[in-house]
Amino acid sequence: MVNFSCDYNNGAHPRLLQRFLETNDERLPGYGADKYSLSAKAKIRQACGQPEAEVELLAGGTQTNALVISSMLREYEGVIAADTGHISGHEAGAVEYTGHKVLQLPGEEGKLTADRVREYLDAFDADRNNEHMVRPGMVYISHPTEYGTLYTKAELTALSRLCRSRGMPLFLDGARLGYGLMSPGADVSLADVAALCDVFYIGGTKVGALCGEAVVFAPGMRPPHFTGTMKRHGALLAKGRLVGLQFDALFTDGLYFDISSHAIRQTEKLKALVRRAGLPFYLESPTNQQFLLLTDRQLQALERQAEVSFWERVDADRVVIRLAVSWATTDAELEALGKALAELPEN
Amino acid sequence: MVNFSCDYNNGAHPRLLQRFLETNDERLPGYGADKYSLSAKAKIRQACGQPEAEVELLAGGTQTNALVISSMLREYEGVIAADTGHISGHEAGAVEYTGHKVLQLPGEEGKLTADRVREYLDAFDADRNNEHMVRPGMVYISHPTEYGTLYTKAELTALSRLCRSRGMPLFLDGARLGYGLMSPGADVSLADVAALCDVFYIGGTKVGALCGEAVVFAPGMRPPHFTGTMKRHGALLAKGRLVGLQFDALFTDGLYFDISSHAIRQTEKLKALVRRAGLPFYLESPTNQQFLLLTDRQLQALERQAEVSFWERVDADRVVIRLAVSWATTDAELEALGKALAELPEN
Amino acid sequence: MVNFSCDYNNGAHPRLLQRFLETNDERLPGYGADKYSLSAKAKIRQACGQPEAEVELLAGGTQTNALVISSMLREYEGVIAADTGHISGHEAGAVEYTGHKVLQLPGEEGKLTADRVREYLDAFDADRNNEHMVRPGMVYISHPTEYGTLYTKAELTALSRLCRSRGMPLFLDGARLGYGLMSPGADVSLADVAALCDVFYIGGTKVGALCGEAVVFAPGMRPPHFTGTMKRHGALLAKGRLVGLQFDALFTDGLYFDISSHAIRQTEKLKALVRRAGLPFYLESPTNQQFLLLTDRQLQALERQAEVSFWERVDADRVVIRLAVSWATTDAELEALGKALAELPEN
Amino acid sequence: MVNFSCDYNNGAHPRLLQRFLETNDERLPGYGADKYSLSAKAKIRQACGQPEAEVELLAGGTQTNALVISSMLREYEGVIAADTGHISGHEAGAVEYTGHKVLQLPGEEGKLTADRVREYLDAFDADRNNEHMVRPGMVYISHPTEYGTLYTKAELTALSRLCRSRGMPLFLDGARLGYGLMSPGADVSLADVAALCDVFYIGGTKVGALCGEAVVFAPGMRPPHFTGTMKRHGALLAKGRLVGLQFDALFTDGLYFDISSHAIRQTEKLKALVRRAGLPFYLESPTNQQFLLLTDRQLQALERQAEVSFWERVDADRVVIRLAVSWATTDAELEALGKALAELPEN
Repeated sequence: MVNFSCDYNNGAHPRLLQRFLETNDERLPGYGADKYSLSAKAKIRQACGQPEAEVELLAGGTQTNALVISSMLREYEGVIAADTGHISGHEAGAVEYTGHKVLQLPGEEGKLTADRVREYLDAFDADRNNEHMVRPGMVYISHPTEYGTLYTKAELTALSRLCRSRGMPLFLDGARLGYGLMSPGADVSLADVAALCDVFYIGGTKVGALCGEAVVFAPGMRPPHFTGTMKRHGALLAKGRLVGLQFDALFTDGLYFDISSHAIRQTEKLKALVRRAGLPFYLESPTNQQFLLLTDRQLQALERQAEVSFWERVDADRVVIRLAVSWATTDAELEALGKALAELPEN
Repeated sequence: MVNFSCDYNNGAHPRLLQRFLETNDERLPGYGADKYSLSAKAKIRQACGQPEAEVELLAGGTQTNALVISSMLREYEGVIAADTGHISGHEAGAVEYTGHKVLQLPGEEGKLTADRVREYLDAFDADRNNEHMVRPGMVYISHPTEYGTLYTKAELTALSRLCRSRGMPLFLDGARLGYGLMSPGADVSLADVAALCDVFYIGGTKVGALCGEAVVFAPGMRPPHFTGTMKRHGALLAKGRLVGLQFDALFTDGLYFDISSHAIRQTEKLKALVRRAGLPFYLESPTNQQFLLLTDRQLQALERQAEVSFWERVDADRVVIRLAVSWATTDAELEALGKALAELPEN
Repeated sequence: MVNFSCDYNNGAHPRLLQRFLETNDERLPGYGADKYSLSAKAKIRQACGQPEAEVELLAGGTQTNALVISSMLREYEGVIAADTGHISGHEAGAVEYTGHKVLQLPGEEGKLTADRVREYLDAFDADRNNEHMVRPGMVYISHPTEYGTLYTKAELTALSRLCRSRGMPLFLDGARLGYGLMSPGADVSLADVAALCDVFYIGGTKVGALCGEAVVFAPGMRPPHFTGTMKRHGALLAKGRLVGLQFDALFTDGLYFDISSHAIRQTEKLKALVRRAGLPFYLESPTNQQFLLLTDRQLQALERQAEVSFWERVDADRVVIRLAVSWATTDAELEALGKALAELPEN
Repeated sequence: MVNFSCDYNNGAHPRLLQRFLETNDERLPGYGADKYSLSAKAKIRQACGQPEAEVELLAGGTQTNALVISSMLREYEGVIAADTGHISGHEAGAVEYTGHKVLQLPGEEGKLTADRVREYLDAFDADRNNEHMVRPGMVYISHPTEYGTLYTKAELTALSRLCRSRGMPLFLDGARLGYGLMSPGADVSLADVAALCDVFYIGGTKVGALCGEAVVFAPGMRPPHFTGTMKRHGALLAKGRLVGLQFDALFTDGLYFDISSHAIRQTEKLKALVRRAGLPFYLESPTNQQFLLLTDRQLQALERQAEVSFWERVDADRVVIRLAVSWATTDAELEALGKALAELPEN
């Protein structure tokens, strides 16, 4: 049974495990003050072209989103997000648990447009009763989005300009950032992201690590006493080396980018297999998540050969499924999947 | 420079790293549904002698405390703890951040007595205005405590009976549980803890793991939808195998107990070295944390040879320091420390 | 300048002020234990036909919504509401501030249908990843709605059955309940509301009182220690008599219903004036809030004669405004408004 | 049965009720934008000698404390208070419910000293692990305190200087401020309070009003969007006139000060009665709350004649009780109480 259900079902890239072995006996200070965490942060700043940025290392995506949003919003603000955004529907209410509303706007294939956000902000400003409403204080986007799509540089620039003109941080959730950066469809580089966003994170869990996300705050944007905030949220690992070592390895010799590229190459092969099988894509995704439109019968048949993700029901007979490639996807796995796809019933 | 500043400054026990290597290529389901997490839970239940208990795997201690407390308390309840308890002063307000008050009672060498808690509960019940007060809903203790001390079986039984007679869960923070269980001073076994507490956790981070704490809920005590609660708190690791594998290894062939015993044996050697150097203990601790009373001059001299933890100032000239031993402490480290202690000025 | 901007711009019904005068020198216990609060609660239970219901007296609507919702939801639940519901958009995030998400569903003229809610619940139950979503734990509706519309008995019954079959309380926000009950379009009585809802409130602020809302919990539904919850939310008035006396008067000799009827009669006159002026209603409202579709030019002209509420912009030229009648609206005020409406430009 | 149990068991001062009657038919804007609220705020600013201060009107004390503290603290801060402070023990955890810890320090007869606070702040700053602790962000005091005692001008000045030197607001809870200002023992004026505190409130509920507290923010100290914060906390009354009118009347022609003076005069008479009866005071209170040390037998006898407040048990035979005078206490009531006191058994 081949497994394309998600991009976090394997372990870590072997070089990361190797680093655990090599450094295991070293006595290092706790709570992220170890030399590997410091080195990882320096390498990330350099990769971003932002020597004055501040980097913090956390364990997972939901943790990171809740922590960044709750510490950057003022008490009376909410965060704007697409209704398909991860924080809107798939983080079990983690943002609301910190007391802040997610102000959900309709997304377009997972994306928020600057026009849509501006229209919302203008309507808010024009409303004489807006003291009775939640004040928008931040914009959250994902890149790649939950549908695998990517912002163009023009789109990201428009959002960035809008947010900065309103004094509102732009936060980019980069749980799968590597796959977005290395996509043939990408015209946004890591330096672009770092220059255009006020805060974003570089996903490790889905791109080579056992766990870990690296938050990058633009110069001056890191909330004070962030270490205390991490502690208060239960997000400060005693052995900070766990995440530090992994990011240090991922940002040594371009490993993060290389393994992301591999995933994208494997995705291109997967897309060819889907096309060859004559199966329709639900939408055009340039990154490692691919969405197919299948009949229930096709899904049933496929699930005998492959683990995939059910995404949503479209109508009485048809569903959307997700196939996720990762840095670890092998040619053998693709071959097995291709065979399964080719054998699906016609409808 | 030898390092006795804490018990989390090394990596993981080699057998845990070995398991990462052996299983790295396996495709496993996420969010704790993998076979290693399931196996770890089964082994922990067995070690506890509680086949009906429910085990959950989390990443760190503060996270665990906040999650357990906030999900077991009712909205209108607070948690009783010693004023020296970890949640009272050293978790950056994590419990209050979830909306609940920590009701701090004076501890005795880190411990809460059943008498003290009963007196508090009786006064609460007798107060006609207690709807204006925070209703006590849980008792939190640490074992070993923050001062390395241990509850006797009689003390723990008294607390357990009191809590059960009041319908109030007893929660034991076992961040260093292994060291408490294997102490020569211990008359409380893991089975005792499991039978007497309504919820407790077995610390991994300080006892052989890179990260991880295993929460054990007595039968019927686990709050419903706990996975969702973990997600909402940012505590649900996508690669649950990270903690699952480590606990699976720690509870295979008694590893957790063996390495805890080793730490205790090394602590006994350390105590002998302290006595030989004629230095006073601040209090009598039967576990891996040892507290010494030093003059400022002695501390200064010691810090040239060893990293230790400053604990608190006692008076104008004297301070308390902590020396922490762990499963990884070697004889060579002890020898170096012994030499440093022997050379300290007399006062 | 006549004022139809809202239904809370006057003082209290004179009988309520009279009661303040008559009882002012009495020494009464605080925090709602006074005899007038107790009497008010008894009269409300009787009016509801629910001798076992439990009544609590609060000061305002947002306070009531936040308190009821946060104390009845479990920590991991959210509340379903129409996207036009008061808690969704006009309470400054009060529900989210208590840590709970408002799960917004599209409303139909302000109403939620049982079908829409069932569809949502079924989709939630069917989703294999629903531990990553906010679990729906309550349904919130307004009656009359924010658009003045009313649930039919069939609609309310369908919602009630659905909620009870799922073990989920149905909460009805009755900020303007009196106007809904006495509407010619109403086929729902107070006894129906009390029988079909698990908790609801009877609005005082907008129906004769200076402040005050009476929450009615169906038998067994009041969360324990609700007085403490009121205190914790800053909602427990030291002089509980302030609200108690008002509700006692409102539920003596049917005053609440009589003054609500008066408002409805005045509304019928207002509707006739609108029709006579040839102005279009935005939607058909059977209660005291009326929504008109005006051109910007018409609105400008109207605002020279009357204070009204801007509601929303429909297109480049047209807006929706609200005219609110209340128990205190006089014939003279209506006459002045009628004159102003009759003189508006044709477009 | 005469009633000295508290200072909020009567209605409002008649002049306040009179104003309700006179203005009842006026159509006024809601949410505190009415002319009476504006006038009240102007009069309070003037009485404080602070033309640039900002005043907000709220309904009750716990609501005010929670709102002021949570909106002025940063997310990561806690509030320092005496362990006998109202927020520490008698507000049902309202501050913690907003996510902030109350950092309790030992009080002296209800008061916090600048030395005690400085010692705490210095220890915090010196602690290398203070990122794991709750950062103190505000100091809360009561004046009069919960034991009726008063700060001297020197004491208040010392606290003010300390707080300002640390960039930390000083918040004074003036639930009974009038009684403190008019006490013969007072050397602190309203202008002093306004000049020395960064925020404080003038209590209405216990000094002549049915409800209401007026918060005074020193220039520049009011958190932005405070109206929205009031709404989010359920503290924004639709009919803001309710509190506005009362404070407008209380600050017209010195009414607030006159009725406070009356209470103090009555208190002096009460103290004379206690002395005449040969009964011991628990402590020396210069304001309207008096604490007596009685035997259980004496209390039993007293309770047959008068309602009083049980305060705390001192030992097996003796208790502390509170007698509360208010602006409404009559000579006849005092006479009855005096008779009851005179007749108590000797022990």
